[in-house]
Amino acid sequence: MPRYKLVIEYDGTPFSGWQRQLNGPSVQQSVEEAIEAFCGHAVRLHCAGRTDAGVHATHQVAHVDLDKQWRTDVVRDASNARLKRLPVAVLSAEAVPDTFDARISATRRYYIYRILDRRAQPALDANRVWHVPVRLDHEAMDRAAKALIGHHDFTTFRAAECQANSPLRTLDRFDCRREGAEIVAYVHARSFLHHQVRSMVGCLKMVGMGRWPENKVGKVLAARDRSQCAALAPPCGLYLAGVDY
Amino acid sequence: MPRYKLVIEYDGTPFSGWQRQLNGPSVQQSVEEAIEAFCGHAVRLHCAGRTDAGVHATHQVAHVDLDKQWRTDVVRDASNARLKRLPVAVLSAEAVPDTFDARISATRRYYIYRILDRRAQPALDANRVWHVPVRLDHEAMDRAAKALIGHHDFTTFRAAECQANSPLRTLDRFDCRREGAEIVAYVHARSFLHHQVRSMVGCLKMVGMGRWPENKVGKVLAARDRSQCAALAPPCGLYLAGVDY
Repeated sequence: MPRYKLVIEYDGTPFSGWQRQLNGPSVQQSVEEAIEAFCGHAVRLHCAGRTDAGVHATHQVAHVDLDKQWRTDVVRDASNARLKRLPVAVLSAEAVPDTFDARISATRRYYIYRILDRRAQPALDANRVWHVPVRLDHEAMDRAAKALIGHHDFTTFRAAECQANSPLRTLDRFDCRREGAEIVAYVHARSFLHHQVRSMVGCLKMVGMGRWPENKVGKVLAARDRSQCAALAPPCGLYLAGVDY
Repeated sequence: MPRYKLVIEYDGTPFSGWQRQLNGPSVQQSVEEAIEAFCGHAVRLHCAGRTDAGVHATHQVAHVDLDKQWRTDVVRDASNARLKRLPVAVLSAEAVPDTFDARISATRRYYIYRILDRRAQPALDANRVWHVPVRLDHEAMDRAAKALIGHHDFTTFRAAECQANSPLRTLDRFDCRREGAEIVAYVHARSFLHHQVRSMVGCLKMVGMGRWPENKVGKVLAARDRSQCAALAPPCGLYLAGVDY
């Protein structure tokens, strides 16, 4: 069966997450139904990173097997024609060998996390940023983030329901930069644990507020103790922004 | 009466524009009602640039007279507390002398216009960009824009209902840059005619598509003939992004 790699953008706000759920609309189901409407048979999408409810993607990657060859621009456009009423778009479709697996073949994932640290609520970016109503010290956050780079046991930053076999991960990049009125965190790794980015950003926000000293981030990492993690950052600031193969 | 200068951000999508209207909610009315709720008397807001329905602002400026002195952070926070359900936020409030007039005292206005020129519809930026489903030549658009810089009669780019006394305006800057997947136009002038930015961007889009030669923009300017203008760019891509005093 011909296999296609899709790059997908979505606003996670109205969805219960990437994955099909009984209790609400999912991105997966929306795109599967859009593809089924033109190809005429059931399909199953497999993605690079299952995002939680409210988490966005500018560049999610998924693969799908179709019964016959389709022009890639038809796969993209016919899907989008049926997604018009939903905040989901297929940016590109590409024919790939059946050895390509969106999840297993991925060699690096890119997340960004946006924080709006000002008194007034966001008018243009509601549900697109984490609104923190006090000014944060982004330079302290950036320095504290460096303790997390490298190969570590990330138990402290892992959801109780995480299904990964190992808590060991290798973080390649974690930068916090001020960009206009926002702080944007850039986090890169081959793979992540469940809630890892939101857990780490929650801790950096404590540093940015001055409630945690910078070196506490390395200490809670070393503790390998979930109870030492700060409150989880909300989903609305998180974006899956790229996947390498 | 103490006068306050407010900086206001809004998503123009649900509004019939800045100005109070009989036929729909306006930004002006929303903010006036929020201020009246805490100060206890009728107020009138005067803004730097009346935006049309669907046009956004990251930095609109308005002034308002209150019956008594209020702390500026109270003016900001009390207004925002009553704007929580609407996509409008008061970013700052500042006490100003009663010679300050948000419209008359302005010495320069900054607009940006965002175009998403890709095949797939926007999922994250619906109502925030002009979606043009073909790739545009932003370098040709940037070169063509330069014909509009300087002191000119902008009759070609002026709405029939424009109330300005003169069609003469001085454009200080008009740049088109590619920023990621988008083209962003930066347009600065002391003041603008009604629909001027959207009219000019509509013409540049024709250049970007290759339907107009670059030098046609200067020719339609020189013609001083509204009928030679291209179709108006839609309001959703336009942002009032700053005002100097």
